[in-house]
Amino acid sequence: MSALLKPSAPSDDPRALVLEAKDRLSLREFKLDEVLGPRDVRIAIHTVGICGSDVHYYTHGAIGPFVVKEPMILGHEASGIVTEIGSDVTSLAVGDRVCMEPGIPDPASRATRLGLYNLDPAVRFWATPPVHGVLRSSVVHPEAFTFKLPDSVSFAAGAMVEPLAVGVHAATKAKGAPGHVAVVIGAGPIGLVTVLAALAAGAARVIVSDVDDTKLAIAAKLGAVSTVNVTQQDLASAVKRETAGWGADVIYECAGSERAIANIFEPLCPGGAVVFVGIPLHPAAYDVSAAMLKEARVEHVFRYAHVFPRCVEMLASGAIDVSSLITRVFPFAESVKAFEIAAGAPKGEVKMQIEMGI
Amino acid sequence: MSALLKPSAPSDDPRALVLEAKDRLSLREFKLDEVLGPRDVRIAIHTVGICGSDVHYYTHGAIGPFVVKEPMILGHEASGIVTEIGSDVTSLAVGDRVCMEPGIPDPASRATRLGLYNLDPAVRFWATPPVHGVLRSSVVHPEAFTFKLPDSVSFAAGAMVEPLAVGVHAATKAKGAPGHVAVVIGAGPIGLVTVLAALAAGAARVIVSDVDDTKLAIAAKLGAVSTVNVTQQDLASAVKRETAGWGADVIYECAGSERAIANIFEPLCPGGAVVFVGIPLHPAAYDVSAAMLKEARVEHVFRYAHVFPRCVEMLASGAIDVSSLITRVFPFAESVKAFEIAAGAPKGEVKMQIEMGI
Amino acid sequence: MSALLKPSAPSDDPRALVLEAKDRLSLREFKLDEVLGPRDVRIAIHTVGICGSDVHYYTHGAIGPFVVKEPMILGHEASGIVTEIGSDVTSLAVGDRVCMEPGIPDPASRATRLGLYNLDPAVRFWATPPVHGVLRSSVVHPEAFTFKLPDSVSFAAGAMVEPLAVGVHAATKAKGAPGHVAVVIGAGPIGLVTVLAALAAGAARVIVSDVDDTKLAIAAKLGAVSTVNVTQQDLASAVKRETAGWGADVIYECAGSERAIANIFEPLCPGGAVVFVGIPLHPAAYDVSAAMLKEARVEHVFRYAHVFPRCVEMLASGAIDVSSLITRVFPFAESVKAFEIAAGAPKGEVKMQIEMGI
Amino acid sequence: MSALLKPSAPSDDPRALVLEAKDRLSLREFKLDEVLGPRDVRIAIHTVGICGSDVHYYTHGAIGPFVVKEPMILGHEASGIVTEIGSDVTSLAVGDRVCMEPGIPDPASRATRLGLYNLDPAVRFWATPPVHGVLRSSVVHPEAFTFKLPDSVSFAAGAMVEPLAVGVHAATKAKGAPGHVAVVIGAGPIGLVTVLAALAAGAARVIVSDVDDTKLAIAAKLGAVSTVNVTQQDLASAVKRETAGWGADVIYECAGSERAIANIFEPLCPGGAVVFVGIPLHPAAYDVSAAMLKEARVEHVFRYAHVFPRCVEMLASGAIDVSSLITRVFPFAESVKAFEIAAGAPKGEVKMQIEMGI
Repeated sequence: MSALLKPSAPSDDPRALVLEAKDRLSLREFKLDEVLGPRDVRIAIHTVGICGSDVHYYTHGAIGPFVVKEPMILGHEASGIVTEIGSDVTSLAVGDRVCMEPGIPDPASRATRLGLYNLDPAVRFWATPPVHGVLRSSVVHPEAFTFKLPDSVSFAAGAMVEPLAVGVHAATKAKGAPGHVAVVIGAGPIGLVTVLAALAAGAARVIVSDVDDTKLAIAAKLGAVSTVNVTQQDLASAVKRETAGWGADVIYECAGSERAIANIFEPLCPGGAVVFVGIPLHPAAYDVSAAMLKEARVEHVFRYAHVFPRCVEMLASGAIDVSSLITRVFPFAESVKAFEIAAGAPKGEVKMQIEMGI
Repeated sequence: MSALLKPSAPSDDPRALVLEAKDRLSLREFKLDEVLGPRDVRIAIHTVGICGSDVHYYTHGAIGPFVVKEPMILGHEASGIVTEIGSDVTSLAVGDRVCMEPGIPDPASRATRLGLYNLDPAVRFWATPPVHGVLRSSVVHPEAFTFKLPDSVSFAAGAMVEPLAVGVHAATKAKGAPGHVAVVIGAGPIGLVTVLAALAAGAARVIVSDVDDTKLAIAAKLGAVSTVNVTQQDLASAVKRETAGWGADVIYECAGSERAIANIFEPLCPGGAVVFVGIPLHPAAYDVSAAMLKEARVEHVFRYAHVFPRCVEMLASGAIDVSSLITRVFPFAESVKAFEIAAGAPKGEVKMQIEMGI
Repeated sequence: MSALLKPSAPSDDPRALVLEAKDRLSLREFKLDEVLGPRDVRIAIHTVGICGSDVHYYTHGAIGPFVVKEPMILGHEASGIVTEIGSDVTSLAVGDRVCMEPGIPDPASRATRLGLYNLDPAVRFWATPPVHGVLRSSVVHPEAFTFKLPDSVSFAAGAMVEPLAVGVHAATKAKGAPGHVAVVIGAGPIGLVTVLAALAAGAARVIVSDVDDTKLAIAAKLGAVSTVNVTQQDLASAVKRETAGWGADVIYECAGSERAIANIFEPLCPGGAVVFVGIPLHPAAYDVSAAMLKEARVEHVFRYAHVFPRCVEMLASGAIDVSSLITRVFPFAESVKAFEIAAGAPKGEVKMQIEMGI
Repeated sequence: MSALLKPSAPSDDPRALVLEAKDRLSLREFKLDEVLGPRDVRIAIHTVGICGSDVHYYTHGAIGPFVVKEPMILGHEASGIVTEIGSDVTSLAVGDRVCMEPGIPDPASRATRLGLYNLDPAVRFWATPPVHGVLRSSVVHPEAFTFKLPDSVSFAAGAMVEPLAVGVHAATKAKGAPGHVAVVIGAGPIGLVTVLAALAAGAARVIVSDVDDTKLAIAAKLGAVSTVNVTQQDLASAVKRETAGWGADVIYECAGSERAIANIFEPLCPGGAVVFVGIPLHPAAYDVSAAMLKEARVEHVFRYAHVFPRCVEMLASGAIDVSSLITRVFPFAESVKAFEIAAGAPKGEVKMQIEMGI
């Protein structure tokens, strides 16, 4: 591996993909002096996935309260190679292939101590203003949030751990019993990783709904999946029909759709769980009475916590295969173009990635 | 006790409190031929509490899809004395003082088998059309849903088990850790039993909110309770102030208030739980994003299941004392008058009960 | 299917496989008059698996307190075809292919009402004295414990649901998060179904231990499985090595081995779970201190509850494939011979089944 | 409060209670240079409880693998007053009355990140070699493990938070539903705080067993408690009798008794939980079969995590009252004598405390 690091010394590339301001990206030199602490590692970035949030910052300059006020490097779905380790690092070595969890919490906050570090308001998250992302040659990161990839997990798959983690965290919260039936509402990238996660987490099968047949066709190839185009049939009726009238055990809302939320308890079985993964723009009409008749348990996720090691395990063992979701790869030199394409929401693309060239 | 049953033979009283139709109650003779099955007991009714739902049938003739089409006996919060037992009954004897769980599910339904018998659509529930209630001298009921009262639990307290069960079921779902801080929104009868249940279930203290100072004053006497009149101060601010900014671990919504629901995640701590106990009339605006920032777990209750024995235990040991909630008692002869008073929502009354005279 | 039922009318076969007494089996006429209740179905038996407990009754005449005092029909792992339905049956029809849960609890017992029907002491379980098993042409069974098989599930697989249910129940109790690492101690039939269940329930991979390489070789083919022959290497060391020192999240003890139990907390990770599935003959030395250092959660299973529908779902969707475990099939006429072979614990056999000939 | 800190400047007392070696204690000058980090506070110690482990180090020189090789200051159950705060401390101020959690984990360890910081092998715990305890005038401690005491919680009660935390952590793991029935085996100090914790955590009542009537008499005064002297009656029979044959929902083993463990599943109800709190010296005979018949869930605790704030809440609200457990108080000057008395296991004493004199 170290051989790879030498010839063209790509980790010396001084450039980064910088969002200068809304609608304005440049691939340009960007100086960051990162000090390697005793429990940090330095990582040469290999592959970075393009996330909807990266694109949203590009096209809108902000996500909710997070506004891009200074030039900011994009990218937070990354894999790479360890090139330097701090003096107290024990679990990683130079040359290790790794993926990285992009949010660093305050270890002393009450939420972090409880194990809920994703809920720590002080968390510093890559490519969330004012924190830079990793579309650059290297990054310094804590050992504790850097995870070794076994040989059987490619850099491309490693860079998929971050989005996959969202689905796996949702499935962890769902606590579906082995052999349960799940519904995933929305077949976008997050819906699709949730389908994979639900199947790996014990769903016997998943019923996926969307309004777009192209997306449903991709979902249908992920395993024991049936699909419902909600422009053509009613989701609740379809689920009831497929479950002898009982309903689904777990429903993942991955569309952020207020319309879906309005009727979300209809396809649910008594005692079932609903997990909100997609983020609706506005408060949604929520039918408390309907939820009561089922005694629904409703869970909400915010990013993820503690799931990177388990994602790596599942990619390594083959329990989850993300390869069909990586639909297009660009070299770093074409990263601006990649974002322009991504901003157009190209039909049939799920995950586009950028290779840094190491 | 059996002595009590003889002289004036009150369990031979042929009358019942009958809701003839909306707004029309009569205390009159009502013939019901109830056969005692091998696993049934016959119970002479001693005390019956008046529930908001009884009153609602009286004043509206219906609750949602349940419409009173035939004369129906009211009352479902009851205690009494066993006067006859079926041939296979083993846990109860004639003379036992008891309280009764008013819903009888289909034992073979899928929900019932799972232990979720309250969610069985086939459940037959007293004073829910077309099933008669128990404002009458006696009833035949399954042994399995009849619970012996120890000497230390009065008939009045026994007739409080049913409403208390709602609060205890909610607290069971909340799963608050010992020493947690709870919020109860709404200080009506259900809010008050939820306060008692939350305190008994491990809340170190409860913050109760309402718009009515009279109700809050009653709540304040139930134990380690502080109160917030939401017409005068903001609930979230008050809770934050009382919890060093962290928020409450459990929030019980007992008001069915769409306004309360709109901001319900604000006073919640990261990783906290919200339990919906009150039933809003319409779908409510629900802030999914706010719930996500806390990764809230939201539970919904429908009546209760498996809590009667635990309620009896807590009344017997003194862990819960409901006596301050029983604010007025009527003899059976005045039961029509009792309902007329109850229909006026008299200020300061919490639970009114009717004694059958045995 | 109904065509099958007619020509040779196999469900009229008057014979059954009867354990006359310890060591004495006969395939002979056996008259059972079973009345079809309104919520029962009559099932023509198609396939019956031979369980270790059947064999144990044959070779020992008893299992613990259950002693064979009268001739008893063996067999409790069964699939078949519905041939008659009671008047109130709604979910099944004549001709349906089904599998059956062999234990019928008292619906009114406290354990059953709680959903813990497998713990009801009054449960009547096939081929457990004095209840007859189903190595006979037909049986009457409650609709509630009879489960329809989709076309994609063969009769052979249907008769595997019962043993599979043990593993799936154990995995349900384990509550492993998606992507966890599991250990299964013991690669006998129960160990193997537990491996399948653990993988389907979210284990990224399973480490299986045994003393017998033949058994380990069968386990190794079931999916993401690595094996440890504990006569050659230490299980705890192997698990630590495979998990970067952290330990396994879930350990299933399926060998009933007191030796394994003595060190069972060593390979466990902090906060992990141990599930006891195998039944040791004697109390075992249990290291409380070691369990404390990990704050282990220890679960125990007794048969299963509520898992048949989920097993059927997983067989139907392909989430679990039991076909490699069915190693030999006998016609009903050779059922005595089948048991004689089974009593010899033939190397390489996992599950032997008997086909009734319909 | 600050007034208290000045006159006799007790926090300048240079002495500490030092365990020089097994059986040798001295109250002498002991120099410790503790640097105040930005997120640390300095605390003047007010009260320190004497724990069985302190006494064990005194009388044995070691606990398991922890051996006293150098002189070590004893004491880890402490309350005090903040006298100085680090530059980044936000939740505490000089003059705050506080109690302290004595174990400081590595914030970056895997166990700590998961919220299981008590299981971090790197934890540094007061008065556990080679870490000094707090029988000295002051200590520097992280803000994150220092908890403010409300006015209603005395220093004596504050110093009881640490032992109480053991019981509350056990009750947190037990997850008893409100109104459950608990058994506590062993009425020593840990058994007694577990009784208090169980009652506060939702037990309707607690059945306490021991061999010593003096201890049982103390337990009997703690609330809804009945007692069983196991030299005179069988615990399982007594529990069955008190629970109409059903058994207890939760059993806490606080005696570390191998004899109690041998039969621990007998008094348990189906689906109940056993929590091991006491530490037996040797592996104990454990009846897996008996546990299976109940499908027992068995939990093990190691110290505690996340419970200090909840303990403080319960002491403040009155949900728990520890005052009857504090049976004797010594001035710091008599601390050697206090340990000599404690080493004699004086009958009738529960918790002895030392006041530092501030």
